Amino acid sequence: MKAAPIRLVPLHGIPAVRAGDDLAALLRAAARGSDARLSDGVLVVCQKVVSKAEGRIVRLADVEPSAEARRIAAEDGKDPRHVEIVMRETARVVRHAHGVWIAETRHGFVCANAGVDLSNAPGEGYAVLLPEDPDASARRLRDALLAAGDGPLGVLVSDTFGRPWREGLVDVAIGCAGIAPLSDWRGRSDLVGRTLEVTNMALVDQLAAAAGLLMGKDAGVPAVWIEGVAVEGDGDIHALLRDPRQDLFR
Amino acid sequence: MKAAPIRLVPLHGIPAVRAGDDLAALLRAAARGSDARLSDGVLVVCQKVVSKAEGRIVRLADVEPSAEARRIAAEDGKDPRHVEIVMRETARVVRHAHGVWIAETRHGFVCANAGVDLSNAPGEGYAVLLPEDPDASARRLRDALLAAGDGPLGVLVSDTFGRPWREGLVDVAIGCAGIAPLSDWRGRSDLVGRTLEVTNMALVDQLAAAAGLLMGKDAGVPAVWIEGVAVEGDGDIHALLRDPRQDLFR
Repeated sequence: MKAAPIRLVPLHGIPAVRAGDDLAALLRAAARGSDARLSDGVLVVCQKVVSKAEGRIVRLADVEPSAEARRIAAEDGKDPRHVEIVMRETARVVRHAHGVWIAETRHGFVCANAGVDLSNAPGEGYAVLLPEDPDASARRLRDALLAAGDGPLGVLVSDTFGRPWREGLVDVAIGCAGIAPLSDWRGRSDLVGRTLEVTNMALVDQLAAAAGLLMGKDAGVPAVWIEGVAVEGDGDIHALLRDPRQDLFR
Repeated sequence: MKAAPIRLVPLHGIPAVRAGDDLAALLRAAARGSDARLSDGVLVVCQKVVSKAEGRIVRLADVEPSAEARRIAAEDGKDPRHVEIVMRETARVVRHAHGVWIAETRHGFVCANAGVDLSNAPGEGYAVLLPEDPDASARRLRDALLAAGDGPLGVLVSDTFGRPWREGLVDVAIGCAGIAPLSDWRGRSDLVGRTLEVTNMALVDQLAAAAGLLMGKDAGVPAVWIEGVAVEGDGDIHALLRDPRQDLFR
């Protein structure tokens, strides 16, 4: 089958999201104003607006850091309240050196600061945590969009992660609904008839990275609509998380 | 500035590439037949066709494996000639366990099998190595396209890599010309006026991943044209390779 072009459409006009907001309604309104049909494609939504809508926000002023958090904060030159929140969100420390805290979260993600972002608007510092269950967040959003008449579509929640060995951040998927996370080419043939054995592509991470091209932090684009990708299968993001016992870097 | 949509266009009709082929001419012809203008955008070309055009191919029948390669091949259930080639392309072994060989290449990439792909068409097994200097490959391609009247454009050479912690492969850039590899948002302000300090996006890896959505191994699409991305700056891929002394996973 001949591949056709893919279109990445930034959703404009999503206002600052607050706890309890109906994110699906905000996304639908933004799609209407952005030439995105929300049918036969994949909607990528950045974690920050999902977390905010779900109230996954902690005011730094409300946090009492432990002695351990104070010690680490002093060592690493950080806000002890931030360190305290990061420690609470950490299931296991994978590496802690050079002031960098690489943690495994309760969900099983390995990332800096257990995914806790600081937002320091003057006078109102707060931290944004990852959603409790990003797959459930994606599924709720998708269900609401389908109920409103959109679809078929896949929904991804994306976040910006660093990686070993390479500088710079990339966007990856942390939640997934209505699309298979892995595009499994094993068993298909390549151009000369050899059976492919290892080409198991992280489809949702490639989609998140593509969407990330439009999610500049200062551009106000927290969601991107992707057209031209086959929306097939289903599954949750745990299919993408390597079994720690098989992992050579944990 | 309001972000506009991005279009990813697969380049169809590129024939099987052989050593010495004029890859720029093949890409221009494919672009003409695929509605891709090769102006104001980024051309992503998969490593395999670049390597083939550059003759970076070794016939397995011509390889005499060392005793060490035979021992490892027996242990890992692999072809000793493949192991021999992988060892020659390896500057340093980062991990070797569970039959997986994660190597640092001479270029500084960390990847499985030092980037050596096997292609086992019946009766003519061979290995495809990474280009000697993928930045130079990208620059030669770009220079040839500019000389033919195309551009302005960036050119990337991409390859498919695994990663720690997450299953599935993603496409990343291994060579770069005419575009800055990192999109540096540090010093810009976010939506509430806070100066961003850490958002240093691996722009060329996000572009390679986006292109990878169309580079299914069985789809015959070894190149993708990306429109709607600002082509700014320049630099080579080494800006993306973390200093091993700063790396927590090497």
